[in-house]
Amino acid sequence: MSEDLEKICKTVLERVTPSREKREKIEALAKELEAKVASAAADFGVKAIVRLEGSVAKDTWLSEEPEIDVFMRLPTSIPRKSLGEVALKVARRAAEGARQVERFAEHPYLEAFVDDVRVNIVPCYDTKPGEWLSATDRTPYHTDYAKKRLTSQMKDEVRLLKRFMKGVGVYGAEIKVGGFSGYLCELLIISFENFANTLKAFAQHKGRMIVDIENHYRGRRDELPLLFSEPLVIVDPVDMGRNVASAVQSQKLYTFVAAARAFLEKPSLKFFYPSETKPLTTKELKARISTRGSIMLFVVFGKVEAVSDVLWGQLYKSQRSLKKLIKLNDFGLLRCAVWSNEKDLNAFILELESRYLPPVKKHLGPPMGKERECKSFLAKYACATGTVAGPYIEDGRWIVHVRRRHTDAAALLYERLKDGGRSAGIAKEIAHVLQHGFKILVNEEVEEIYEKDSEFAKFLTEFLSGKPKWLEDM
Amino acid sequence: MSEDLEKICKTVLERVTPSREKREKIEALAKELEAKVASAAADFGVKAIVRLEGSVAKDTWLSEEPEIDVFMRLPTSIPRKSLGEVALKVARRAAEGARQVERFAEHPYLEAFVDDVRVNIVPCYDTKPGEWLSATDRTPYHTDYAKKRLTSQMKDEVRLLKRFMKGVGVYGAEIKVGGFSGYLCELLIISFENFANTLKAFAQHKGRMIVDIENHYRGRRDELPLLFSEPLVIVDPVDMGRNVASAVQSQKLYTFVAAARAFLEKPSLKFFYPSETKPLTTKELKARISTRGSIMLFVVFGKVEAVSDVLWGQLYKSQRSLKKLIKLNDFGLLRCAVWSNEKDLNAFILELESRYLPPVKKHLGPPMGKERECKSFLAKYACATGTVAGPYIEDGRWIVHVRRRHTDAAALLYERLKDGGRSAGIAKEIAHVLQHGFKILVNEEVEEIYEKDSEFAKFLTEFLSGKPKWLEDM
Repeated sequence: MSEDLEKICKTVLERVTPSREKREKIEALAKELEAKVASAAADFGVKAIVRLEGSVAKDTWLSEEPEIDVFMRLPTSIPRKSLGEVALKVARRAAEGARQVERFAEHPYLEAFVDDVRVNIVPCYDTKPGEWLSATDRTPYHTDYAKKRLTSQMKDEVRLLKRFMKGVGVYGAEIKVGGFSGYLCELLIISFENFANTLKAFAQHKGRMIVDIENHYRGRRDELPLLFSEPLVIVDPVDMGRNVASAVQSQKLYTFVAAARAFLEKPSLKFFYPSETKPLTTKELKARISTRGSIMLFVVFGKVEAVSDVLWGQLYKSQRSLKKLIKLNDFGLLRCAVWSNEKDLNAFILELESRYLPPVKKHLGPPMGKERECKSFLAKYACATGTVAGPYIEDGRWIVHVRRRHTDAAALLYERLKDGGRSAGIAKEIAHVLQHGFKILVNEEVEEIYEKDSEFAKFLTEFLSGKPKWLEDM
Repeated sequence: MSEDLEKICKTVLERVTPSREKREKIEALAKELEAKVASAAADFGVKAIVRLEGSVAKDTWLSEEPEIDVFMRLPTSIPRKSLGEVALKVARRAAEGARQVERFAEHPYLEAFVDDVRVNIVPCYDTKPGEWLSATDRTPYHTDYAKKRLTSQMKDEVRLLKRFMKGVGVYGAEIKVGGFSGYLCELLIISFENFANTLKAFAQHKGRMIVDIENHYRGRRDELPLLFSEPLVIVDPVDMGRNVASAVQSQKLYTFVAAARAFLEKPSLKFFYPSETKPLTTKELKARISTRGSIMLFVVFGKVEAVSDVLWGQLYKSQRSLKKLIKLNDFGLLRCAVWSNEKDLNAFILELESRYLPPVKKHLGPPMGKERECKSFLAKYACATGTVAGPYIEDGRWIVHVRRRHTDAAALLYERLKDGGRSAGIAKEIAHVLQHGFKILVNEEVEEIYEKDSEFAKFLTEFLSGKPKWLEDM
């Protein structure tokens, strides 16, 4: 390990390792909540095994951001569709007096804030391995496995890895991030021993990386690439049929790979703690956009009635559809993004080479070898009103020049979204909002939302740079 | 054969078959020239076997356009480099009094006009098959072979095929056309028996067509696709190592295929005798260009000192280079063409979607798997002044947005051609002319040459339509 790297890791560890006082406080709080959940369950006559899980249970939490996960393992006799109702009732009682947010995506749980600490009260079924009934049934087994395998030194390494991943923006399994979960970090440290080795392994990532810690596929490792299709495969030690990294978006994986390379090349604290973005002033923003030469289109709309994971799932799905729409119509898409404050403001951002396209385009017909297709092509285009020139033969195929249907990207978006955009692939809840109104802002017109939301201002400032923070003074 | 087709062929044959009077006149003229060449050779003490070759010798000429080829077979003792000099001396004497044009490309010959009939006086070596020393040594053997194989009925079919090919613009082996030679037409009729069958065979052309009339490759036909790479292979009956169709441009082959299909579908006299193009008036031209929406660029220059075949070879080569230049710089090329009156006016014509490009473009870097390439990409772009945004990661590779070097196609052409354009791939003689001056005309500015040359006007009128004549009322 280089001296630099060692020094930096030491500094980071000082910040992320909980002090004795903090540890005592959090552990006491956790115990107290466990007891409250158990007692609330008893009050309602719900037979539950209540236990602390997650990073606090495994002692891999970051001092700066503790998060307490209390699980209740419920009998499999409770039907899947009643699970949420039963669990929320118990959880609400247990967290009485605290600020509460109901979370319900694929799985129901209650988020509460107690003494400024985030607490998740989560139900699951009390099942045996392999008999999973809901998404979180594996969690207690993950806790047991990690506790058994992680030495005290390794827990520090997990903290370093988590902090690094947070710093470069790839930590978190929620849909919004699509990054690495805490359990995944623990498995990586178990597999590669420490933080530096994990970075080294990912720095060399080529095509695919497959890790099978418990050797579930002993003697048939060559089946693994066929069983799993993702570029990163970490076989779950408690469930050989599951890839713990299956939800890691390739964008996050590759960002981690690139950051690992850059960090190993030139270690720096800024990977763990990037500087806060200072948003451009409105005047700077307008100047930046106008000298840039490209065109920025913002599709801006209001509140979507959906919990975070559903919202982001629909935003990303809709973004992919918009991207396809723009590309299909030949606009030179430079980049796109999506932003949401998860409250009253959402935006799709599309950066194009140009808002307008020339009125005529070349349309390639079939190669001469395809006689039947040539015949119908000629029948369709030879005397059509939209044909500007041709048909003629070039490089062994028929060609015509035709008028484009859409030459203005903003008009195209407006036309396809004004009814909600379901036919253009906009997801349901978003389409519902668009139907009732949205705005398309072009270039500096964005100032109207830029000044309203400072988080958006930071986001757009970063988007315009495009460069990851850790690349800034390369 | 459909009734229509039969009727049309009959009409065409009436026009292309020489009448007895015309035949007598041409044959007498040929005989006379043969005698003159023989006597001139004797005068100069050149030992030559003088004989009529080509379409008149084989009786496959078109009544409308007779062309007399008189060959002198010279002893192999004359060095290759003196062949032209010796032959031209004899030919000039033989054609004394007639208008003469010296032709010298790969092979020297004299073109003369006697009684308005084109006469070619061509030297070759008196060699045995397989011992060829110059490009035309095979010709006497071709004549002998065709005379032996063509029945009187087949000669009519050759005439039909030639006339059809002239009508659809694919007849002629000269570089300007790059089409089918007369000998190739004869071989096609020998192979497919008649005109209609030849069209039927080509209408079904898929990928490749290979014909080996004399069965030179008996028992090893599967070697043929490996020995020859062209999409049309007609093994020369007098030289199994030669593809008679090797100089047929794929553009001409596919045009013939398409015309054959259209004709068989709906036979018409217009395939043989297309209507004369009526050029647009200057006013119409300007209106047409402006409503069209695309951009027409004309690179216009003066006389090139080169014989026809050399001129067209260099024009086409230079055109390919310009095409590459325009495409490499991302301009949306719709179509391009080249025009020359072979005298004082030459033009490259480029039709683009747009004259200007947006100032910024997306530049794709290496995929993340290529660690070293990623490193140099980041070193090059992360802090470069031309980088507008990024580097960032997308779809597993690094991306940057950079400023384009060229955003105006006319300026790009001017800049790359003003020194002659050798570095842009312009052929030597053309570069020599460009160096001394050229014009770039944009859209209706072309009026200045349009009004000067009626052949150019016809050409441009056809180019703007883009459609083959025979497709016009489909």
